[in-house]
Amino acid sequence: MSIIQAASPPGPPPTLVDWSTGSISGEGVEESVKTLGQLEGIFEDEPAWRAMNPDTEVYRVRYWRPVSDGKTGGLFWGSTVLQPGRVGDEYFMTHGHFHAIRDRAEFYATVKGTGALLIMREDGELWSQKMKPGTVHYIPGDVAHRVVNTGDEPLIFLASWPSDAGHDYARIRATGFSKRLVLRNGEPCLP
Amino acid sequence: MSIIQAASPPGPPPTLVDWSTGSISGEGVEESVKTLGQLEGIFEDEPAWRAMNPDTEVYRVRYWRPVSDGKTGGLFWGSTVLQPGRVGDEYFMTHGHFHAIRDRAEFYATVKGTGALLIMREDGELWSQKMKPGTVHYIPGDVAHRVVNTGDEPLIFLASWPSDAGHDYARIRATGFSKRLVLRNGEPCLP
Repeated sequence: MSIIQAASPPGPPPTLVDWSTGSISGEGVEESVKTLGQLEGIFEDEPAWRAMNPDTEVYRVRYWRPVSDGKTGGLFWGSTVLQPGRVGDEYFMTHGHFHAIRDRAEFYATVKGTGALLIMREDGELWSQKMKPGTVHYIPGDVAHRVVNTGDEPLIFLASWPSDAGHDYARIRATGFSKRLVLRNGEPCLP
Repeated sequence: MSIIQAASPPGPPPTLVDWSTGSISGEGVEESVKTLGQLEGIFEDEPAWRAMNPDTEVYRVRYWRPVSDGKTGGLFWGSTVLQPGRVGDEYFMTHGHFHAIRDRAEFYATVKGTGALLIMREDGELWSQKMKPGTVHYIPGDVAHRVVNTGDEPLIFLASWPSDAGHDYARIRATGFSKRLVLRNGEPCLP
């Protein structure tokens, strides 16, 4: 089925996803790791955070950017593995971000594990959606989004987002999310 | 983990995907079926096409449009089941389309089955990528795309695309794809 081409292809060769693990691999797939030490100021219980090993992996993202960052009309694809754990009574979670271009949406789709997607408007109003294998979440524009692992195993989800969306992490570092998902009486609770 | 909200959520509730079958379901998921009869003029061997039952299902798309068609910055999500079969020596395939806004990209990710993704520029230059379980295909802007089932079982793939991409089917109806994937000596061939 392959033929010799005179012109170079308009897009990249395909990559691979393992549907049973959510792992993506192939040419052009990049990886980034976030440790506890890199998440300073994100968890509420700072003494508990200081007492933990800063090299502890909280999450690992593999992402595929087939076009340049900022290009209009393109898409990116990623896979996140968020470890189980807590800092004090607060569950391990992703940093969370708004998109730099605020109206850009994103899909999250859960492959393994259990947790919650937190969605927060600029005014601090916040909603949560339960994540479990197979849930597909539409994150509309104009909201910050963060994922929390409330289970005992890694929480793995796939994501797709516009290549011009960008990330605004600074807004979250400055004011955080309005609610935190914590362990209360043996259950996840959003007080 | 659920709390009473004063304001209505900024996005829809999650839907579900069965990773083993690629089937999506839930509130807001729509379905569309394409039969042989609806694909008039798409296959080359018209006598063979006329001799077949026009009610034969060629493919079925389930799609989730969490925002209105045409909205900038949003995303849609879909799952396609393309049946095995041939019209003469040409394999069953999707209609194929350009996006109405030409620079909009799309992801296809294969869940089950084997086949090929055909990608064609406006000038007719065409490339193919093999599809098998786990292949993730980036369809850049400015190309028509069509999926062909070269196997003996349904070819199932997930897709995500911008909500303002739109579909231009008319261009394909007018001039078709520049190459066709056919059975030759027991193998798929793109002459």
